[in-house]
Amino acid sequence: MKTAIIGGDKRMLYAAKAFSDDGAEVAAAGFDNLQSLCDIRVMSVKEALKWADFSVLPVRPVDGGCINMPYAAEKITLHDFARMNGAKPVFSGFSESIANAITAPVCDYAAREEFAVRNAVLTAEGAVALLINEYEDSVSGAKALVIGYGRIGKVLSRYLQSLGAEVTVAARKPSDRAWIEAVGMAADNYSYKELSSYQIVFNTVPAPVLDAACIDRLRDDVMLIDLASAPGGVDFDRAGERGLTCIHALGLPGKSAPKAAGRIIKDTIIHIIKEENGGKDYSGLCDDRLLLHL
Amino acid sequence: MKTAIIGGDKRMLYAAKAFSDDGAEVAAAGFDNLQSLCDIRVMSVKEALKWADFSVLPVRPVDGGCINMPYAAEKITLHDFARMNGAKPVFSGFSESIANAITAPVCDYAAREEFAVRNAVLTAEGAVALLINEYEDSVSGAKALVIGYGRIGKVLSRYLQSLGAEVTVAARKPSDRAWIEAVGMAADNYSYKELSSYQIVFNTVPAPVLDAACIDRLRDDVMLIDLASAPGGVDFDRAGERGLTCIHALGLPGKSAPKAAGRIIKDTIIHIIKEENGGKDYSGLCDDRLLLHL
Amino acid sequence: MKTAIIGGDKRMLYAAKAFSDDGAEVAAAGFDNLQSLCDIRVMSVKEALKWADFSVLPVRPVDGGCINMPYAAEKITLHDFARMNGAKPVFSGFSESIANAITAPVCDYAAREEFAVRNAVLTAEGAVALLINEYEDSVSGAKALVIGYGRIGKVLSRYLQSLGAEVTVAARKPSDRAWIEAVGMAADNYSYKELSSYQIVFNTVPAPVLDAACIDRLRDDVMLIDLASAPGGVDFDRAGERGLTCIHALGLPGKSAPKAAGRIIKDTIIHIIKEENGGKDYSGLCDDRLLLHL
Amino acid sequence: MKTAIIGGDKRMLYAAKAFSDDGAEVAAAGFDNLQSLCDIRVMSVKEALKWADFSVLPVRPVDGGCINMPYAAEKITLHDFARMNGAKPVFSGFSESIANAITAPVCDYAAREEFAVRNAVLTAEGAVALLINEYEDSVSGAKALVIGYGRIGKVLSRYLQSLGAEVTVAARKPSDRAWIEAVGMAADNYSYKELSSYQIVFNTVPAPVLDAACIDRLRDDVMLIDLASAPGGVDFDRAGERGLTCIHALGLPGKSAPKAAGRIIKDTIIHIIKEENGGKDYSGLCDDRLLLHL
Repeated sequence: MKTAIIGGDKRMLYAAKAFSDDGAEVAAAGFDNLQSLCDIRVMSVKEALKWADFSVLPVRPVDGGCINMPYAAEKITLHDFARMNGAKPVFSGFSESIANAITAPVCDYAAREEFAVRNAVLTAEGAVALLINEYEDSVSGAKALVIGYGRIGKVLSRYLQSLGAEVTVAARKPSDRAWIEAVGMAADNYSYKELSSYQIVFNTVPAPVLDAACIDRLRDDVMLIDLASAPGGVDFDRAGERGLTCIHALGLPGKSAPKAAGRIIKDTIIHIIKEENGGKDYSGLCDDRLLLHL
Repeated sequence: MKTAIIGGDKRMLYAAKAFSDDGAEVAAAGFDNLQSLCDIRVMSVKEALKWADFSVLPVRPVDGGCINMPYAAEKITLHDFARMNGAKPVFSGFSESIANAITAPVCDYAAREEFAVRNAVLTAEGAVALLINEYEDSVSGAKALVIGYGRIGKVLSRYLQSLGAEVTVAARKPSDRAWIEAVGMAADNYSYKELSSYQIVFNTVPAPVLDAACIDRLRDDVMLIDLASAPGGVDFDRAGERGLTCIHALGLPGKSAPKAAGRIIKDTIIHIIKEENGGKDYSGLCDDRLLLHL
Repeated sequence: MKTAIIGGDKRMLYAAKAFSDDGAEVAAAGFDNLQSLCDIRVMSVKEALKWADFSVLPVRPVDGGCINMPYAAEKITLHDFARMNGAKPVFSGFSESIANAITAPVCDYAAREEFAVRNAVLTAEGAVALLINEYEDSVSGAKALVIGYGRIGKVLSRYLQSLGAEVTVAARKPSDRAWIEAVGMAADNYSYKELSSYQIVFNTVPAPVLDAACIDRLRDDVMLIDLASAPGGVDFDRAGERGLTCIHALGLPGKSAPKAAGRIIKDTIIHIIKEENGGKDYSGLCDDRLLLHL
Repeated sequence: MKTAIIGGDKRMLYAAKAFSDDGAEVAAAGFDNLQSLCDIRVMSVKEALKWADFSVLPVRPVDGGCINMPYAAEKITLHDFARMNGAKPVFSGFSESIANAITAPVCDYAAREEFAVRNAVLTAEGAVALLINEYEDSVSGAKALVIGYGRIGKVLSRYLQSLGAEVTVAARKPSDRAWIEAVGMAADNYSYKELSSYQIVFNTVPAPVLDAACIDRLRDDVMLIDLASAPGGVDFDRAGERGLTCIHALGLPGKSAPKAAGRIIKDTIIHIIKEENGGKDYSGLCDDRLLLHL
């Protein structure tokens, strides 16, 4: 199974390595300073797409109309990619951003629940490190609020609790609040009864859940970290006016654990291929017929 | 707000007490040996239904065509209940078993997610105690398998892990397995790779997930507990033939924590009433107009 | 290595089995209804002491001047035991109760730290089950006080916390209180600031730490469990006068996990033998010269 | 109570602030770029020692024969400090490094168990952040070894476990190993049976526990962090020759949580003063007679 990794950051290189460690033949394109990495060949995008059975694009595949290749000198438009790729299957994150341009079958690995869950763990790890790095007090003993009880909220609140913080989680659904209390944390809704008491506030909800009125209720020395994808859920302007310590942290998995993030991309793609192929073993998948089914 | 608790076991008495502690007027019917309990009046079913604004039936409301009243001398058929109750709102568990017979509005508190989550905690507590009581070795250090990662599986696996067991959870969905690994446990699917290695096996899945072939792979000294509602998920006949220690544990919340179980019934009903009433406070709910909206 | 297990309860039988599983030759005496157990021979005390290289007495070796043999018809005085045993090494718990009577070398396995730690785990497990069995509310969400932060207090407080209780630990030493807070629990001293707020109170301190004045500050519906060895640390008379639910729980390891308790006795004795023998392997220990060094 | 904070890093400034927040009058000396901080006066060392009732030196009070004042332009020898201070009580860390030079009563706050425990928590937090920052894979799912089960080993191993690592702790004492297993981790001794399997290795033991032979058994991609005070417990030369990723992390509390580290210094000194004063309240301590008792 010939796999072309096209562009992306360090975690895509680790994805390439993970495919290679699994026995796949791998080429990487879009890493111009890279001479070689283990057994991974370096090719141009054009060569790689011609050589491979399928290609893998980054979690965020497009940047300004071009394929997202921060480590490449060349720029490849999405249109050119589609033309060079032809009919070969493409695995990509956020596939809605490329779907219109590409006629080949596109499979979105980032839309898989297992990808999201495992990335939430990496995000939570990165968030913990960011907090400890930036917060001058200890997490142990601090009062912390986590807004949202989705994947990241679930893992992050648990980590903070384990590190000795007194954790409240704000969630809209009564059933989520029942879960929160079941795991020994305090539950609140988005009215934030005790908002002025938290030393640490994490937002995980991609909606305006901390507006100016909320910002005004926060402590002066609060540590405020927004993990929600842009534009986030915090009124950063008001936080800035008040001089609060406020960080909008994006792309943590690729930054704090690129190796794990790459492995997760590889694992998810392999699981998709196996399922498409009726659960057969990966080692038997190296033929073109399979890939036609993707 | 006049509330009639009709039948059920100890937890329904605690539900009555919880309503009373919340300021409601409460009557209990179907507890014949009971003279009085705190401020709760004891009435006949007929009197109670006449007196009350609404009634509350047990989690399992029907037993052999009659209202489930294990502590009552009298037997009331579902039909008689419906006639005596008339048009007053009825809160009940498993309402599908009474829906056809009753013309009044019926609201199923047991169908609420928050009820299910909080009961899962009680089930898991009861399961832990049952295990420690019956298992002659220690939980600490034991290899345990939990089958299923629904509500009970989630809480129970966490409790076993906290008590020092080495826990594997079997789940069908890759996303569940990603979660299981995210919280530091081993994940497996229903093929149970290491089935012969577990000292403790809990089933939580109401489907035949441990058939005769699986039973034959278990250790001789396994402790096997099925928590799934009847008929459970274990081939008990085969387990009996092999002489395995095997328990089908049902109704744990009512047994191990009747007080909490009663409070959860009360809380859930109050939340339903509040929502129906547009989020207004419970203290203002004591009039008939509200109840017409139920 | 011929080992004689003399008396005791179920856990001593499991200790016998654990020695046997490890490859030792084992005889059990003092279990009159027992015909055979796996490969363990049943002998009279006299025969067993004659046959064996060394003997193992129960954790509490003496009961009313006789060897503690609850499952035996015969009664053997400590004096007779000493005479029949002669000069052979004796492993025993609480050896101070037999030291004066016995001239042979006596080694106290229960005095070893590892024995105490591992038994604390069993005690904590048994205490958790006792609590869930007897307490009608849920542990999850309850306010619990654990008095003492020795071995049992450390494990038990952690277990209660994992089961969702809000745990306070009372300890005398500031360093213990620092540890308690470090693991996310509240720390108090023996003045018990919030004594009237706890639904669950465990004592682990063998000293009068809950006197009549303290008892009077407890809630009416408190669940009070004393785990300290007789006479315990609770004013039971006053608790009885107030009608509180109060349990003095003793010997939990032997009751809730006899198999693990037996294995711990065996492990500890083997570790002692290995150390005495300069760290050499157990398999090489089956000769009399070694035992002379005990 | 007039308190002079003399030198040190950011955490000593936070200690000054903590004293001030507690109602003490505080002067800080040795922070030359500092104009003012909250209500804390800035003085020269000489002025501060003259003005104060007692002084507080840093955790490591001496650096090259002078008081450790990294943020000061002036250099004050220990000898000059002793002369200027006269007979006033001095609180200091590692007091053996100043004891010979100073005739006034010296009290070592860093020698207190509570100080050590609470700093271990900060060290563990800092170590977790360092690991996540530097390690390109995820902590979740990694095999980790923690060498030593003292204060830092206890907290750190628990944190790593909570973050989803599979943790082994190496300890010399059987009782420590019993504890390690009691909290659900694997225990090993210093022969490190599976040394080649760990992705993460932390040392906490200030003795040569990872010599060249051990280093040679580690994985190529191991992340090796030594937390033991200089010279550490790792053969860094050999690790360097092998090209392993190896960090000797010192002074983590002052770096990752200076605010908490300062508060701990303040708390410990207050506890010492209260105890010396028979447990009386801090608010009554503001007179010279008390301090004579230190």
